[in-house]
Amino acid sequence: MQALFFKDKIELKEIAVSIPQKDEALVKVSLAGICNTDVELVKGYMGFEGVLGHEFVGVVDKADRSEWIGKRVCGEINFGCGDCNLCLSGLSRHCPNRTVLGILNQNGAFADFVNLPIKNLLEIPESISDTAAVFIEPLAAALEILEQVHIKPNQQVAVIGDGKLGLLVCQTLKLTGCNLLLIGKHPRKLAFAESWGIKTSILEELPDVNFDIVVEASGNPAGFRSAMSVVRPRGIVVLKSTYHENLDLNAAPIVINEISIVGSRCGPFAAAIRILEQNLVDVESLIDEVYPFTQAVQAFEHAKQKGALKVILQIN
Amino acid sequence: MQALFFKDKIELKEIAVSIPQKDEALVKVSLAGICNTDVELVKGYMGFEGVLGHEFVGVVDKADRSEWIGKRVCGEINFGCGDCNLCLSGLSRHCPNRTVLGILNQNGAFADFVNLPIKNLLEIPESISDTAAVFIEPLAAALEILEQVHIKPNQQVAVIGDGKLGLLVCQTLKLTGCNLLLIGKHPRKLAFAESWGIKTSILEELPDVNFDIVVEASGNPAGFRSAMSVVRPRGIVVLKSTYHENLDLNAAPIVINEISIVGSRCGPFAAAIRILEQNLVDVESLIDEVYPFTQAVQAFEHAKQKGALKVILQIN
Repeated sequence: MQALFFKDKIELKEIAVSIPQKDEALVKVSLAGICNTDVELVKGYMGFEGVLGHEFVGVVDKADRSEWIGKRVCGEINFGCGDCNLCLSGLSRHCPNRTVLGILNQNGAFADFVNLPIKNLLEIPESISDTAAVFIEPLAAALEILEQVHIKPNQQVAVIGDGKLGLLVCQTLKLTGCNLLLIGKHPRKLAFAESWGIKTSILEELPDVNFDIVVEASGNPAGFRSAMSVVRPRGIVVLKSTYHENLDLNAAPIVINEISIVGSRCGPFAAAIRILEQNLVDVESLIDEVYPFTQAVQAFEHAKQKGALKVILQIN
Repeated sequence: MQALFFKDKIELKEIAVSIPQKDEALVKVSLAGICNTDVELVKGYMGFEGVLGHEFVGVVDKADRSEWIGKRVCGEINFGCGDCNLCLSGLSRHCPNRTVLGILNQNGAFADFVNLPIKNLLEIPESISDTAAVFIEPLAAALEILEQVHIKPNQQVAVIGDGKLGLLVCQTLKLTGCNLLLIGKHPRKLAFAESWGIKTSILEELPDVNFDIVVEASGNPAGFRSAMSVVRPRGIVVLKSTYHENLDLNAAPIVINEISIVGSRCGPFAAAIRILEQNLVDVESLIDEVYPFTQAVQAFEHAKQKGALKVILQIN
């Protein structure tokens, strides 16, 4: 099969289809989205080598539980061992022995076929299009904030970063009724948020507000410093982006102002599917372009460009 | 009156007694404790100049509300403006216009007399000795952790740092019933904790435990790195110390493991008084020496030594 493989560089190459093991499914990938994490992985993040890709929708081709065959699915990307204390307490996303699809010791979905444990599969309801289904994984990650932090309808909340993730986060936080401001720097992207009824600002023109909660989704250390500068005493800064570089942090304001910093990663897929079914968020507007898989390397170059929104690979 | 004054260096000098204004009291200081924050202030932290000292017990000498005169008191050290949103919502400790006794734009308690707003005074019950009362402020700071984080009786909790604050924090966290470990490096101090029935360890000999909650009370960046290395995924690191230097922080583990970092500063005085009245903690063992005020500079040198416990000034 064809796969977009990363080792020092990314290239389309022919690799063998992996035969599904017990409790595993082989999924024929329809569409897959390129995420900023993929761009970071190609810079060396996590030291990953192999087939990239973790945002996908596909159809089960083989599985030893035949009721899954032919179903349209997406998949939870963390493969826990199922035996450790974290897996047994429902935190398999944090399993110390986990592999992660296209991120950690596990070939990903930028390929004709991808293997997943059947327990990681979620069937996609008919009302959700393939292109919308590609957003289930990042939408789940956005919803993770609401799993971790109780955002109240009357709170002042800011999201820093108007990239793909920031725009998904905004849309999910808006559903709480909170007084929300997106802080970004790209007029085109801020215009999306405005079209959804979300207030926007550029950092230099911030109103004089002390935010109860600030979500840092810009992925750069300057965004974190901005978050610290606009959060109120006893407020919460959610770190939604991973950083390839270190944060040089003055810890004194964290202690003096009793700020909480909450790291946030992957989230609940089932909730993301419900939100999409109910048309509560607009994901299709976030698509920049859909490339045929033969142009996967060019698609990746597009996704790497500053200001790019979602780039999707049409694989099958 | 005599006062221990800091400007470039610390020295005992004669300054005028400040006449109490409306709603203010003049307190004749009996005893005052030297805190690590005082040591940091003398290194330049906060850019403070003036009379140091914020841990004290004294007797009200003058006040325009006569019922306070003659009462034995301690005092909440943050003086809020009383008018801002934070003050009005009960968070005067975070008032942006606040002064802080002996720390920020407010002369402190290392002097014959100290001025405080009457609303900041707390009467000390007879059963609490003067030497124990000196610990009300740091004990309140230790209790602040329990105001911020719900520590459950069956959780694994570690405290890093066996200094004065770490030893107070241990004693308060022990009251939750949690499975507690103090991680330190001074045999004398670890022996105190052992005598209170608290398990101890040196960092190099840590058992293989992933802690639900880790309190960083060592006051140095290495302690923070240790805290991050022993906290479990989705766990909480409480930052209880201020740092004079920056933290160089790899943010990726915070996001990947969804760690929460909670800054923690001043706490509830009334609760500290109740805890002392009920003899639930042992503070007197933490006293290294009581110096007459005439030897205040020597006392400060003692407090600055590595491994020193509480040094107290007998002022009146």
